[in-house]
Amino acid sequence: MVLLETLQTPSFLLWRSVVRQNCVRVLKRAEQLKVNIRPHVKTHKTLEVSKIIQEEGEGILQEGRKVVGIVASTISEMEFFAEGGHNDITYATPFHISRLDRVLALRHCLPSFVPRLMVDSVGAVEELETALAERGETGKIHLFVKLDCGYHRAGIDISEGKFDVLESVVKAIAAGKHTEFFGLYAHSGNTYNCKGGVQEAAQIADREAELSATAARYLKSLGLYPQAVGVGSTPSATAVSPLPPEITEIHPGNFVFYDLQQVDSGSCTLPDIAVGVLSRVVSVYPERNEALIDAGGTAVHKDSGGISGWGRVDGHPDLLVKRMSQEVSVIGMDPSASSVGLPIADRFSLGSMVTILPNHSCMSACQHAQYSVLEKRGDREVVDTWTPCKYW
Amino acid sequence: MVLLETLQTPSFLLWRSVVRQNCVRVLKRAEQLKVNIRPHVKTHKTLEVSKIIQEEGEGILQEGRKVVGIVASTISEMEFFAEGGHNDITYATPFHISRLDRVLALRHCLPSFVPRLMVDSVGAVEELETALAERGETGKIHLFVKLDCGYHRAGIDISEGKFDVLESVVKAIAAGKHTEFFGLYAHSGNTYNCKGGVQEAAQIADREAELSATAARYLKSLGLYPQAVGVGSTPSATAVSPLPPEITEIHPGNFVFYDLQQVDSGSCTLPDIAVGVLSRVVSVYPERNEALIDAGGTAVHKDSGGISGWGRVDGHPDLLVKRMSQEVSVIGMDPSASSVGLPIADRFSLGSMVTILPNHSCMSACQHAQYSVLEKRGDREVVDTWTPCKYW
Repeated sequence: MVLLETLQTPSFLLWRSVVRQNCVRVLKRAEQLKVNIRPHVKTHKTLEVSKIIQEEGEGILQEGRKVVGIVASTISEMEFFAEGGHNDITYATPFHISRLDRVLALRHCLPSFVPRLMVDSVGAVEELETALAERGETGKIHLFVKLDCGYHRAGIDISEGKFDVLESVVKAIAAGKHTEFFGLYAHSGNTYNCKGGVQEAAQIADREAELSATAARYLKSLGLYPQAVGVGSTPSATAVSPLPPEITEIHPGNFVFYDLQQVDSGSCTLPDIAVGVLSRVVSVYPERNEALIDAGGTAVHKDSGGISGWGRVDGHPDLLVKRMSQEVSVIGMDPSASSVGLPIADRFSLGSMVTILPNHSCMSACQHAQYSVLEKRGDREVVDTWTPCKYW
Repeated sequence: MVLLETLQTPSFLLWRSVVRQNCVRVLKRAEQLKVNIRPHVKTHKTLEVSKIIQEEGEGILQEGRKVVGIVASTISEMEFFAEGGHNDITYATPFHISRLDRVLALRHCLPSFVPRLMVDSVGAVEELETALAERGETGKIHLFVKLDCGYHRAGIDISEGKFDVLESVVKAIAAGKHTEFFGLYAHSGNTYNCKGGVQEAAQIADREAELSATAARYLKSLGLYPQAVGVGSTPSATAVSPLPPEITEIHPGNFVFYDLQQVDSGSCTLPDIAVGVLSRVVSVYPERNEALIDAGGTAVHKDSGGISGWGRVDGHPDLLVKRMSQEVSVIGMDPSASSVGLPIADRFSLGSMVTILPNHSCMSACQHAQYSVLEKRGDREVVDTWTPCKYW
């Protein structure tokens, strides 16, 4: 039996029952919205979490709805999950042909594997067509067209309700010999850090769904039928009202772990956070009511998430990670805490273990080569070790 | 011959001649200050950069001054460099006994290896004494005592010129059977992001040096002689005026690579930055004069460094990394640029390679499993691949 106390610090902890609860909640939400789910794996990057979603999805999703595949943010994720038995993997950011040979190698090795790539310009479609032709590929590559509904990160901007560029991209795919128009994909990342909470996230999500549905109807009127129309981030999956019938799927990712910025935006509550960075107190400074812990930016990631501090101390709601360096951080009193507990020196001594709840769990998880799995929060026994996909 | 164009993106680039210049400059500074140098390896984490410092140090340092050892921020660095032939390694943050067995294992395997550990409380000394006694260790462990000269991260606070706690810690070491007082160690991390530039950094560095020297004199008056008194961060190594004679060494780390926050604080200029994250443009958005690149927080680290943007585009001083997600970022015009060049769409097309200069190079380097080495900025040939130490 491996106990928490024997772990080196920093270590990445995962509470499995909380992950499962989070998956169940989002699957029920998909069922309530009457859509498929194509979960994004970028947050957890493990076969084990994907398996939980698959298992729970089989019980929860009805009437033919299902977990239709997964979404990856890197080619190494695509390789990792394809080799792990996943057959339907969508690469979620605009695809560049410098990655094509790795995708094709996978398709050649794994005959049942269907990669779906993402484009948001005619130029990208043309380059892909040329590259596929040069390689003598048979078997069309399915393409999602990325929509920008106002987030302005990636995608064809349809936020003003204009679909001319979208039309030209879809027509370029339709005209190509080597690609096939598969669907539309929108990601309302602007629901993150909604200071207006769930209501504001809901407005953004509703607008995204309405724009995507209108785009789908427009394309259908031209005889260009998307097989899939996907919307949604984790906050919007929580927040969105009933979806227009054109929307066929959602693709949230962060929900498996959640984090402090999701608490801040109202997507979840503190007990829903399923991961943390285990660390030890390595010095206590009573005179400034602070302590030094051995988890810094390399273990937590220095992502402010648009909120105060660099993380929170699990079980100590009045504390905040106030400053973060490369390998250490300073914890102290949160000046905005509603009630203040004991002085730091009365709570912690040298070697005390504290778990830091991250601002942005996708980033924190990425800093680690393995996750130490506990069944539930408060447990001391490490029941499993999961190995995430790393790098690109 | 491996060309830049064939690299997967994101990739971490290192310009070797720039690293060497940076090392030469800081070694000359140490020689000018008439002190030894104990370089911190946390930024580069490679045997290759340590070798450059060692080689150049032999030519530059005179009168018996030398590279006296290295400083590590993790035990895995200590293991990596000890196994790589380094015999004198200081662990730079307050040491906790949960790491002791790994240090002792190294000492047992490598008879010439001398670990130096860091303490900043009587409690830590006592715990270490007990743990060493329990393990029946012979051969004392050398201890640095960490000083806090106003940064308030770690160390014994001597910023008000009071040395009573310091005295009690050094006396506890002197009274112990298993530890030996080796020296004093101060790190003026508050010189980072000095908005007052070099002048303000110089004031902080002068104050740190004066306080450390006074502390050393105080201890000597009690018969407690530090063999080493070390000060300085990268900005202060650049900024400090002549050092008091009690100061025997400096221990900067970031200088090997530098970064945008060091440019901002006046420690270096843009051409001194020796590393960058190679990425490709994966979409161009003329309507908002922005482009999407395939390097996000997992490749660059989302560390603001207290400055605008999430990085800069090498060779394009009017551009800024404006927004950063997990795997992609948006580059666009820097609103504060003094002159504005061509529109983004006239500079970049799909697949254009851009190199992102990081806000904080220690963090960016940590995100990668290897560095692609070019001889100088602008080169296209990858002349070597270096493998840094990873994790903890």
